Amino acid sequence: MIQKLIANIKEKNAPIVVGLDPMLGYIPEQVKKEAFGAFGETLEGAAEAVWLYNKAIVDATCDLIPAVKPQIAMYEQFGIPGLMAYRKTIDYCHEKGLVVIADIKRGDIGSTSAAYAAAHLGKITVGANTYEPFAEDFATVNPYLGTDGIKPFVDVCKQENKGIFVLVKTSNPSSGEFQDRIVDGKALYEHVGAKVEEWGAEVRKGDYSNVGAVVGATYPEMGKLLRKIMPHAYILVPGYGAQGGKAADLAPYFNADGLGAIVNSSRGIIAAYKQEKYANYGAEHFAEASRKAVEDMLADIRPVIG
Amino acid sequence: MIQKLIANIKEKNAPIVVGLDPMLGYIPEQVKKEAFGAFGETLEGAAEAVWLYNKAIVDATCDLIPAVKPQIAMYEQFGIPGLMAYRKTIDYCHEKGLVVIADIKRGDIGSTSAAYAAAHLGKITVGANTYEPFAEDFATVNPYLGTDGIKPFVDVCKQENKGIFVLVKTSNPSSGEFQDRIVDGKALYEHVGAKVEEWGAEVRKGDYSNVGAVVGATYPEMGKLLRKIMPHAYILVPGYGAQGGKAADLAPYFNADGLGAIVNSSRGIIAAYKQEKYANYGAEHFAEASRKAVEDMLADIRPVIG
Repeated sequence: MIQKLIANIKEKNAPIVVGLDPMLGYIPEQVKKEAFGAFGETLEGAAEAVWLYNKAIVDATCDLIPAVKPQIAMYEQFGIPGLMAYRKTIDYCHEKGLVVIADIKRGDIGSTSAAYAAAHLGKITVGANTYEPFAEDFATVNPYLGTDGIKPFVDVCKQENKGIFVLVKTSNPSSGEFQDRIVDGKALYEHVGAKVEEWGAEVRKGDYSNVGAVVGATYPEMGKLLRKIMPHAYILVPGYGAQGGKAADLAPYFNADGLGAIVNSSRGIIAAYKQEKYANYGAEHFAEASRKAVEDMLADIRPVIG
Repeated sequence: MIQKLIANIKEKNAPIVVGLDPMLGYIPEQVKKEAFGAFGETLEGAAEAVWLYNKAIVDATCDLIPAVKPQIAMYEQFGIPGLMAYRKTIDYCHEKGLVVIADIKRGDIGSTSAAYAAAHLGKITVGANTYEPFAEDFATVNPYLGTDGIKPFVDVCKQENKGIFVLVKTSNPSSGEFQDRIVDGKALYEHVGAKVEEWGAEVRKGDYSNVGAVVGATYPEMGKLLRKIMPHAYILVPGYGAQGGKAADLAPYFNADGLGAIVNSSRGIIAAYKQEKYANYGAEHFAEASRKAVEDMLADIRPVIG
């Protein structure tokens, strides 16, 4: 799957991913009106609003981008109807040729991690039939439980040619509380990064592995170090834009081949119409504002890769 | 909510929780036959089998136990129908007066953790209406992202009188890879444990806080140390029984008041009928075997608390 992601990135000349993290507060009134008109002010209505909003943004940006990253929490908050909108969004993005990186941050042990891996990246057998419950391409995974928690995901990646991104250094202010603590002269995130390289060895095809890493744009010095520790891991980079990460800081996340990193923007793209910069589009044309924000993000990032 | 859990534990004289982690392989043929007969060999059929299996076990054990711990991965693996069975199980357990500890191991940052907290422990507002998407009482939470990831859960615990159990030292063999690494002379899990005590301060009522911790039964020496580091945290103890934890090892997880810990058993209870010890029940009477396994677990654990 990493090869498909790289092919998409090259084809679009776009090492970026759009985070589909729809909060109700981002969704324009006319979209909510349509959805609530059909389903009432219910979880079903909220889920329909999320779906209509996502569809418009995907339609307006899919020719420019290689991938999307839906944040499952934003769907899970609307219960079962929300998760139905999540699945509908995934299927629609696949129809449009996009790679789907599921930001699910799951992680457990043994058979439980295996169940998550089957749910999101693999297949589940019921009697004589086989199903793909959520059918994403990549999933983000939490490493706190160690190899027992990661291995079942790697096994499914191997069988199904899917991928994972392991949380190594997250973009948030308090990520250092545990991740930066010094163990044997190195930060914990360095140890986790070394494990990512190790876990990825058996699912590497060519220069990159199906096991990647999450490293926040807000910590470029650490990004530089982790790039060296994990030469074969693709780095998923959150924190650009709204969280404060700048394009100039992104260079160290890439390898000399111009590959190796994919930069996420969520709010900065999907709620672009709310920014002063794109105010001229108005809420009516929120999807065009998102398209312009993608173009601006690409113009900002492309020169950095060189 | 910790007060309700404690009241239930005292009433039943049972510091235990039954893990409702239904794998298809555990479910007796006659249950699957009934479910597949009604819904086919589909995700809906699997979800119905899970529900029928859970209901029978809850009916057979609910007068003996204070709480259940459904592992959401085992439902998520059956997609949307699986999650509908998860919700149905939660509602049924509440009808039976049980506290529901959702083993979801979620954890993200800021608004994303807030969305998970709303989904599982809180409420979500859609227009003029308010919903409880999954309506659990406690949730397990992963600490790798630091305070940013935990605080939104604590806020919801405060508003809604709900609780969390933070992963501190998990029961699996490779949990030590990161959790045991030495930072400033102490293991990482000790630092996480100290944070649990700190995070819990604002939601403490009486001797215990609504912020508890997960510490595996398989590491009793660490349990003893963590009991001291987190005097006000209830400890959720996985790893008893099938994973190798013994009753004699459980004493250090409890405080002098005989409270402070709740021991989980999943497979050992719900799939008891598959053990040689309970083979006389047969698959037909799987729920009675589960009841006997609960009674045996109580007989094993009660003397340890003293």
